[in-house]
Amino acid sequence: VASIGSAEILAVGSELIALGRVDTNSLYLTDQLAELGIAVRAKAIVGDDRRDLSALLGAALARAPLVITTGGLGPTDDDLTREVAAALLGRELQEHPVVLGAIAERFRRRGVSMPAINRRQAMVPAGALVLENPYGSAPGLLFDLGGRLLVLLPGPPREMRPMFEEHVRPLLVPLASGLRARRRVLKVTGRSESQVEEAAFPIYSQPPPAGIEIATTILASPGQIELHLSAVGPDASRTVALLAARVAALEAALGQAVFSTDGRSLEEVVGQALLSRGLRIAIGESCTGGLVTGRLTDVPGSSAWVVGGVVAYDNAVKVSELDVPPEVIARYGAVSEEVARAMAVGVCRRLCADVGVGITGIAGPGGGTPEKPVGTVAIAVSAETLTSRVSVFPGERDVVRRFASASALDMVRLVLGPP
Amino acid sequence: VASIGSAEILAVGSELIALGRVDTNSLYLTDQLAELGIAVRAKAIVGDDRRDLSALLGAALARAPLVITTGGLGPTDDDLTREVAAALLGRELQEHPVVLGAIAERFRRRGVSMPAINRRQAMVPAGALVLENPYGSAPGLLFDLGGRLLVLLPGPPREMRPMFEEHVRPLLVPLASGLRARRRVLKVTGRSESQVEEAAFPIYSQPPPAGIEIATTILASPGQIELHLSAVGPDASRTVALLAARVAALEAALGQAVFSTDGRSLEEVVGQALLSRGLRIAIGESCTGGLVTGRLTDVPGSSAWVVGGVVAYDNAVKVSELDVPPEVIARYGAVSEEVARAMAVGVCRRLCADVGVGITGIAGPGGGTPEKPVGTVAIAVSAETLTSRVSVFPGERDVVRRFASASALDMVRLVLGPP
Repeated sequence: VASIGSAEILAVGSELIALGRVDTNSLYLTDQLAELGIAVRAKAIVGDDRRDLSALLGAALARAPLVITTGGLGPTDDDLTREVAAALLGRELQEHPVVLGAIAERFRRRGVSMPAINRRQAMVPAGALVLENPYGSAPGLLFDLGGRLLVLLPGPPREMRPMFEEHVRPLLVPLASGLRARRRVLKVTGRSESQVEEAAFPIYSQPPPAGIEIATTILASPGQIELHLSAVGPDASRTVALLAARVAALEAALGQAVFSTDGRSLEEVVGQALLSRGLRIAIGESCTGGLVTGRLTDVPGSSAWVVGGVVAYDNAVKVSELDVPPEVIARYGAVSEEVARAMAVGVCRRLCADVGVGITGIAGPGGGTPEKPVGTVAIAVSAETLTSRVSVFPGERDVVRRFASASALDMVRLVLGPP
Repeated sequence: VASIGSAEILAVGSELIALGRVDTNSLYLTDQLAELGIAVRAKAIVGDDRRDLSALLGAALARAPLVITTGGLGPTDDDLTREVAAALLGRELQEHPVVLGAIAERFRRRGVSMPAINRRQAMVPAGALVLENPYGSAPGLLFDLGGRLLVLLPGPPREMRPMFEEHVRPLLVPLASGLRARRRVLKVTGRSESQVEEAAFPIYSQPPPAGIEIATTILASPGQIELHLSAVGPDASRTVALLAARVAALEAALGQAVFSTDGRSLEEVVGQALLSRGLRIAIGESCTGGLVTGRLTDVPGSSAWVVGGVVAYDNAVKVSELDVPPEVIARYGAVSEEVARAMAVGVCRRLCADVGVGITGIAGPGGGTPEKPVGTVAIAVSAETLTSRVSVFPGERDVVRRFASASALDMVRLVLGPP
């Protein structure tokens, strides 16, 4: 095999198609191969059908210097990858005594005698290298086809991943072309996708210097936009420098809407800002129902800077547990900046925190009015000063709740100021 | 075109491969086609490369009576689907005045003049049917190739889905073979994947009656196991009856661990049990940090049966807001059945609820001891009686938190009893 610059991946299994399951194996392999400088040019999923599998595997082998399949190595009639590959390559299948012994031993250790059906897994096509599977009964197979490689890996990720890392990766390292992709991620909040696109376009549309390929993709989710930059070039330090320059230009264009350029989540950024200032936070939530506190406490070590929270879904709880004056609710309504401010102050004082957050809104589908439509959310942050705002977020209940959570965390970040 | 029984899907776009993005379009199309009785036999993702796209599209057209592509219809040089399809089919591209007018009008309505680059989107291969796109500038294209169909759809889901539903689906209905797949889902909690597998195997491994195909897949996530049953057969009522019999047998084998056979989530099941009994719930959480309250309030209309919750991350909050006696914490430790019970009783009384939940545990990575390792979680439910238990959940922080949330919701379900 000469140098390998690209690959195709084929996932085998009817259940992957029929049930709308996500083929996580190919995501993992694409990442692993990119790190080696091997670009995945196409990937496919095919059912347990001899003709379809043969057609897709044959076509991939005709195109790509490296083809990796996952799945279809089990012991049942449905598991066809081994046989189809042998037939395509014109290799005979023979029972491999060492493989058979290893499978039988595996069952023996579990106190079970090997079912006859598992003998199939010891059938090895002539000339194939057997890849040991310490986590299952299906061994992997690797074919050196003179100029190209075919690798058959098992489907379960807990078997496939160690097999790739221990047996396949070391073989690929010296063969890979070496143009490792470098990546950076900018995370932005408080801006719409089109606002980010507009600000970023003049930067990412600049042609890169000759020899370097760079791609930018924008991924939007409620309350968060991510800019993924990926670059490949022959000189690693120039590639890294170009990415750094692009990240810096994007940061300058997007300003304080950028909350992370190092992969950290919004809750991690908020947590580190609190920790570095020696402050502790408490959250009073209504429409977000615990999601903001849930996100903050998802960060390991958050007990150092989260005191706790109160989910005041019922107005009575806003009064009894957060000391919101009933007349403020009566006068301004439960969804109002005034109530959010009282909740932020109340939860901060009741829980003896330094920073308090109050969130009250209408997540829908019911509860909207002409003045306060579904999506209206009031958020307040009580720290040295008391800050509040009202937003109307688009989308369905869970989208409104996700927007509101991100917006509340972002408000805390901005109130605390730069690190 | 004669009857169509199977299809292939091809997603086009380098970003889909490079960034490990999930091709949600093919999941959606697979579901839509299954409902029509059209089985997707293979699907692939290919980058924006003329040669690769041509090879994969050509191969798919040679195999399948229906090929649907998504993506690659935009205005830039990277968008190749239109041209590659025209070249493969030997059709000339011509500017289509009506399409051009529609694109220009779209820009005009937004107060922008059409960029020259968008003219490309008005190039239509000879003989193609143009599919209108009310949500974007890229029209779809449909080719009747005499015996097979090729459909080119745009990549953004908000453009692709309405185009499929309004223009493609109606054309496919009379052509589909009619063997519509029927599905059922059983959801189970409080059992491990292998326990579910062991109980379910004797049922799902029974061969179905002649003519009916049935498949069962087990999907496991922390705290929840789903059994997906899918069946296809010529007689819809027999297929549905077989599925119902299998579901009933699985329910009998798995007992009260089955919480839903109609798609409802655990929080919906708990909510309906509370609502039908006229009860309201309050949650006192420590290690789950608001996730249980977050899940319950994710259900529309949950304000009718959720009073609220207290996230008592700091022990001081357990004392001040949940009335946990400090001597109970000192004697048994913050992570103990005794503290969970006091939290459940305290949150129930403080928030004037009918049912109280208390959760305290060690989510990790820090905080474990030999007696109480990471993953130890005490949960209590206070209703007519006071129930509690301690579990040790496996996995990392977020996995422990998800197990604990599911376990707490399940305990409420079991305490409330059958509907």
